[in-house]
Amino acid sequence: MSESAVTSGTSNGMSRREELLAVATKLFAARGYHGTRMDDVADAVGLNKATVYHYYASKSLILYDIYKGAADFTVDALHDDPTASARETIYHFTRRLLVGIASDIERAAVYFQEGPYITEWFTEEQVAYIREKETQVYEHVRDVIDRGIASGEFYACDSHVLALGYIGMTLGSYRWLRPHGRRTAQEIAVEFSTALLRGLIRDETVREHSPLGVEVDADTSA
Amino acid sequence: MSESAVTSGTSNGMSRREELLAVATKLFAARGYHGTRMDDVADAVGLNKATVYHYYASKSLILYDIYKGAADFTVDALHDDPTASARETIYHFTRRLLVGIASDIERAAVYFQEGPYITEWFTEEQVAYIREKETQVYEHVRDVIDRGIASGEFYACDSHVLALGYIGMTLGSYRWLRPHGRRTAQEIAVEFSTALLRGLIRDETVREHSPLGVEVDADTSA
Repeated sequence: MSESAVTSGTSNGMSRREELLAVATKLFAARGYHGTRMDDVADAVGLNKATVYHYYASKSLILYDIYKGAADFTVDALHDDPTASARETIYHFTRRLLVGIASDIERAAVYFQEGPYITEWFTEEQVAYIREKETQVYEHVRDVIDRGIASGEFYACDSHVLALGYIGMTLGSYRWLRPHGRRTAQEIAVEFSTALLRGLIRDETVREHSPLGVEVDADTSA
Repeated sequence: MSESAVTSGTSNGMSRREELLAVATKLFAARGYHGTRMDDVADAVGLNKATVYHYYASKSLILYDIYKGAADFTVDALHDDPTASARETIYHFTRRLLVGIASDIERAAVYFQEGPYITEWFTEEQVAYIREKETQVYEHVRDVIDRGIASGEFYACDSHVLALGYIGMTLGSYRWLRPHGRRTAQEIAVEFSTALLRGLIRDETVREHSPLGVEVDADTSA
């Protein structure tokens, strides 16, 4: 295969490297990282093994790319407007997280399925990068709950425990969220946020009439 | 090794078979099922491989015992008093689930970590048994939310989506719940239930003063 064939884009607009990553993600999600060989990746993407190694010098570098993409996405999804109310912020977190997960279920599945074992395959620096992002995600959620408590918007509660519960509820949705399911990711975000925020907001009128802090049209993904 | 040595109890009161199951659970949780060999199990429990096979004819039968134990426990934890209020029922579900998970984190970890791959290792009947229990768990939670909606105790909401979120929040706690952590499983159950139930309960007085439907002394695991 010529170098130009290796580096040129594919018919669906993805680069070969992106295509390789997408195919490997599907295989890892279905069979596990341990149960997938580089030969399987090469076969599935229709390249010879040498070409696969041109892009990724090892299988663990493919897994790290999947991990880094998922971790960076999650931190970005929690980008925060510090002037917004805590309830609005939590709603926007939830919406962006669920829409993002629905757009790449397999990446989220690989991330959570392989989590217990990454220290076996990643370098210390790679592990440290992922752990740092995970800490940022937890702290972002905890801090916005604390902000709501401090301003009197939310009831006093254990923001540490609720942040962990929130992460389980939202990120754990990769197990059942389907891009073309009965409810869209946007609609599910509204359901989750409404139930959770009604439980946190102190002011009775706000709680009844605008628990999300914004007008929501569930038909749009604004 | 004599048959009596094989079948006698061990010093900590567990039978050899229970000890073998506990050791295998720890190994599967740490290294993954795929990454653990029967030799590793035999070494870790201090038995020869033939003795291990005396108890479990295959590695997959050990995994199935772990799965069946976790699935049966979860369905039992959702045993329901149909005369109780929906809020009380949800609080008791949460308490029993979290206390149970905290008592055997590794079993819960194996259950969730290996979930995507069980069809590779289990017979169709074994998979059907596990799936049936998982459906029961989901339906139990959904039905109690529906009961609360029907009686006017809860706001109208999508009980399907909220049941899935509830399962992610509670069962997903195996990732961070620690038996000797800063907060007990019982305390975490109170935090989760209070936030969630305050979000579901319609009556303002109930919501403010007894969202769990029962008096809770967080120092007891009553």
